[in-house]
Amino acid sequence: MGLFKAAGVVYKPVEEIDLGPDSNEFYLKANVKAPRMAGFLVKIFAWFLESRIIGTLLLYILKRNNLIHKLVSNATLEEAPMFVPLHPFVDLNEQEVEQIGSDASPAERVQRAMNCLPLTLEKSVDDSNSSSFRRWTIADYSRAYSSGEITPRKVAEQFINAVHESSRAALPMSFFINYDAEDILKQATESTLRYERGDPISALDGVPIAIKDEIDCSPYPTTGGTKWLHKVRPCTGDACCVMRLRSCGAIIVGKTNMHELGAGTSGINPHYGTTRNPYHPNKIAGGSSSGSAAVVSAGLCPAALGVDGGGSVRMPASLCGVIGFKPTFGRIPHTGVLPLNWTVGMVGILAGTLEDALIVYAAISGQLPSHEPTILPPKLLFPLLNSTNPMSEIKFARYGEWFNDCSDEIRICCSNALHLLCEHYKWKTVEVTIPEIESMRLAHYLTIGSECTTSLSSALEKLDFAELGWDARVALRVYGAFNSKEYIKAQKMRNRQMQIHKNIFAKADVIVAPTTGVTAYSIFDDALKTGELDYINGGTSFDRFFHYAF
Amino acid sequence: MGLFKAAGVVYKPVEEIDLGPDSNEFYLKANVKAPRMAGFLVKIFAWFLESRIIGTLLLYILKRNNLIHKLVSNATLEEAPMFVPLHPFVDLNEQEVEQIGSDASPAERVQRAMNCLPLTLEKSVDDSNSSSFRRWTIADYSRAYSSGEITPRKVAEQFINAVHESSRAALPMSFFINYDAEDILKQATESTLRYERGDPISALDGVPIAIKDEIDCSPYPTTGGTKWLHKVRPCTGDACCVMRLRSCGAIIVGKTNMHELGAGTSGINPHYGTTRNPYHPNKIAGGSSSGSAAVVSAGLCPAALGVDGGGSVRMPASLCGVIGFKPTFGRIPHTGVLPLNWTVGMVGILAGTLEDALIVYAAISGQLPSHEPTILPPKLLFPLLNSTNPMSEIKFARYGEWFNDCSDEIRICCSNALHLLCEHYKWKTVEVTIPEIESMRLAHYLTIGSECTTSLSSALEKLDFAELGWDARVALRVYGAFNSKEYIKAQKMRNRQMQIHKNIFAKADVIVAPTTGVTAYSIFDDALKTGELDYINGGTSFDRFFHYAF
Repeated sequence: MGLFKAAGVVYKPVEEIDLGPDSNEFYLKANVKAPRMAGFLVKIFAWFLESRIIGTLLLYILKRNNLIHKLVSNATLEEAPMFVPLHPFVDLNEQEVEQIGSDASPAERVQRAMNCLPLTLEKSVDDSNSSSFRRWTIADYSRAYSSGEITPRKVAEQFINAVHESSRAALPMSFFINYDAEDILKQATESTLRYERGDPISALDGVPIAIKDEIDCSPYPTTGGTKWLHKVRPCTGDACCVMRLRSCGAIIVGKTNMHELGAGTSGINPHYGTTRNPYHPNKIAGGSSSGSAAVVSAGLCPAALGVDGGGSVRMPASLCGVIGFKPTFGRIPHTGVLPLNWTVGMVGILAGTLEDALIVYAAISGQLPSHEPTILPPKLLFPLLNSTNPMSEIKFARYGEWFNDCSDEIRICCSNALHLLCEHYKWKTVEVTIPEIESMRLAHYLTIGSECTTSLSSALEKLDFAELGWDARVALRVYGAFNSKEYIKAQKMRNRQMQIHKNIFAKADVIVAPTTGVTAYSIFDDALKTGELDYINGGTSFDRFFHYAF
Repeated sequence: MGLFKAAGVVYKPVEEIDLGPDSNEFYLKANVKAPRMAGFLVKIFAWFLESRIIGTLLLYILKRNNLIHKLVSNATLEEAPMFVPLHPFVDLNEQEVEQIGSDASPAERVQRAMNCLPLTLEKSVDDSNSSSFRRWTIADYSRAYSSGEITPRKVAEQFINAVHESSRAALPMSFFINYDAEDILKQATESTLRYERGDPISALDGVPIAIKDEIDCSPYPTTGGTKWLHKVRPCTGDACCVMRLRSCGAIIVGKTNMHELGAGTSGINPHYGTTRNPYHPNKIAGGSSSGSAAVVSAGLCPAALGVDGGGSVRMPASLCGVIGFKPTFGRIPHTGVLPLNWTVGMVGILAGTLEDALIVYAAISGQLPSHEPTILPPKLLFPLLNSTNPMSEIKFARYGEWFNDCSDEIRICCSNALHLLCEHYKWKTVEVTIPEIESMRLAHYLTIGSECTTSLSSALEKLDFAELGWDARVALRVYGAFNSKEYIKAQKMRNRQMQIHKNIFAKADVIVAPTTGVTAYSIFDDALKTGELDYINGGTSFDRFFHYAF
């Protein structure tokens, strides 16, 4: 990509550096390549530097000659930047919650979360109207396994058949990038044995859960939706969140499809096929966690993991009619997740019901590995959904423009839902103004782009761009176009929006907004191979609200 | 500076925003200016974007049309970026220290710090050999005032005469950018009255202290060493650290000279004159806190405040033969200091003796204003310098290359000092290797440059570059040349060096190194008007070790 490409240094892990006196780490004498200048020479030099064309070239040469490209710009190093998002927290002493120390094991946390759920969930699957399609919840699986009504092994077999079938349909659903029938059956058999011994690990034992292909998970490669990333970055084991799910007995059923590098929201992937919306296979599922949303929507899994940097969990969830949950920064370990945009992108949960999202959250949240920085308080709060007295005094903040700026069907549907909720519980809505949304949307885009460029920089240097999809090529070029001032200003904007939101939350408990401005749009044939650039639909209507990633 | 300049939005303070339903904050509909493209069009677009010349132009137009320049890049907003340096701290349970809650008042902290000092300081000034020049310490002033030997008023008069004289010498010393005799005498008179009433506020009462012209301080403008910054950013009152000094009774004696915008280390300032080294007026004093180092060195004040982003306190202190102390990030409030590079630049202290640096540190450190973020523990530890048993078991880490890379006189002097120290106290030196220093030096430069460009961006847009000194013009052009990837990589490097240093500190308690590689160099006439670009002397030999700003 560079006119003159300077190869970057590859820095080794810190623990491998010998810091003793006989170390072979060499001392690089600062060898500044610039003559002393004073008087007239300084003036000439300043003039040249300030001219647009010659100045740019001069600066390039200065940076290269002084090893900046080699030692910094193009260097490869694993360390996270020294900054993490600063979320000053306020301890609200909340009512109607169960407080769980984050050092409890994942299985213990799942049990505690189960205790927060209403008893009505305990009703059998058969109680519901069996004539219409109904997704099984985690509690459904758990109860059916415990009663012997079905076994995890049987569920796994049906799952494999269903996925196989879906990919051979006239309009292939393209749910998964990889799934390994043998590995799934092995896990299911072990779970079945545990139930036979009357000794399941937790309510998640034997429950099928799918993982977005941005998260490390044995025995699969982590493609990030590309044809090449797994070749330069081999997957060496489970991500921390996947490990936690396994320790609860969950069956990991494969790696779901996604928008290439998470760099778009349509879920159109030229390499692995376009994930289709289970409600209407001619429509997109949304993205980037397209496969995770679609498998939950189709009823193949009660829950799946995604990663959300700018709506990548919440948008496809919304378009596929399931729950999408993006937790706060620092709540779920990021170890083993592609660090595409580490200050905004976090592991999120897609689930058929709110209760199931809570159970999976209980399994994967909690204490971070020691190398992951956070300044959040360690305790976890789970809402007591089975409480008999509904939470009093909930106040919604509603920004009218967000409702006006949606298609009619969405505006009416969301307004009705809000109205019903307020009427039923006697909750209140306050009208507010949330300023500078468009500035924040741009600042967020700038952040995602800059961080993505940085984390992929070593890989991109060696990459033949022909291996990228066309829309990803365009995205990466724009991502790389920001200067350091723009990145820093974007971080100022994030701080500013946090303060604005602190003021909004002084007026209300919850901000309500439609998740997307339009429903899923149609898949056109011309986009299947190149992807599409549709920032009007994709960039505007969808992610309008996803500056909430700050 | 821009080919097409897009005026940036000026964002108002958060507290002035009306968040209610009738707010006049307008809702800017996301108006993405990009057509839907798929198929062949996407390919053409990607090709154009990837070409160097057309691509750069296209990206510029894309960013401008989509309001990125207006809403983000060129916007003016006061908020700090959302990130602060992450210094995970370890509570070492240190011995031989006095622990002070940081909520004590500045005067109380000064008193507690005085209690940590050896009694020998109590000896009278007259006890010393009065034939040779000797700087007065804070304790000297305090004792002489209390005994009535001299009054603050008398000291102030002598101070004003001395400064006046120094600026009229054949080689003018250029210590100050601004000092106001009337204001100084007024403070001195009040202090004198307090002593007459037998009621001084603290040991700092009546002690003259000078402030670098990068720190707000009434009744002076804050020039930052420029001819224009104070015009676009009026000083509206004392910086927090100055306020604390005043509350201890100190006499603020004026604003010291500095390298323009702190963008160099020579202290050659074309607007306010070149600060000269009191030990040899033909040599530089070093910078950027040139005046603060020189006034302490000349004995005009026992202490002065500077700001240190990359050695700007420690280097001039070293070249002028005084103590230079840069405290840890988050120890001293930054409110009211030009935010030239807020993650590395901090208020530092220049003093004639270690003890005096400790006293001033006690006055200005401690609890930050609530809007300033830090994750440091709030308690302050002061070393008991009067302890009878010298701290046992101090281990020095010494990196041989740092000594080898100095001029002979510095290497020998520093080696001898280290040797004496070890011999006298039976302390030990361990040889270590500190890798990747040059990478860190560049990462540090990149950080300073990017942050400086960002914080000055609004001012620079309106600036006629002819108002800048020539060397500052060159520096600003280079500072602005970094992209977001380079800035973020530099932050990764900082994290990496923190981890490396954590490992070094597992081997030793203190890292010893010469402060500068050479002594003060000569001032040549050709540099007085343009400044000089001497990155060999200035950039290399001096600031080699000042990546310690990470």
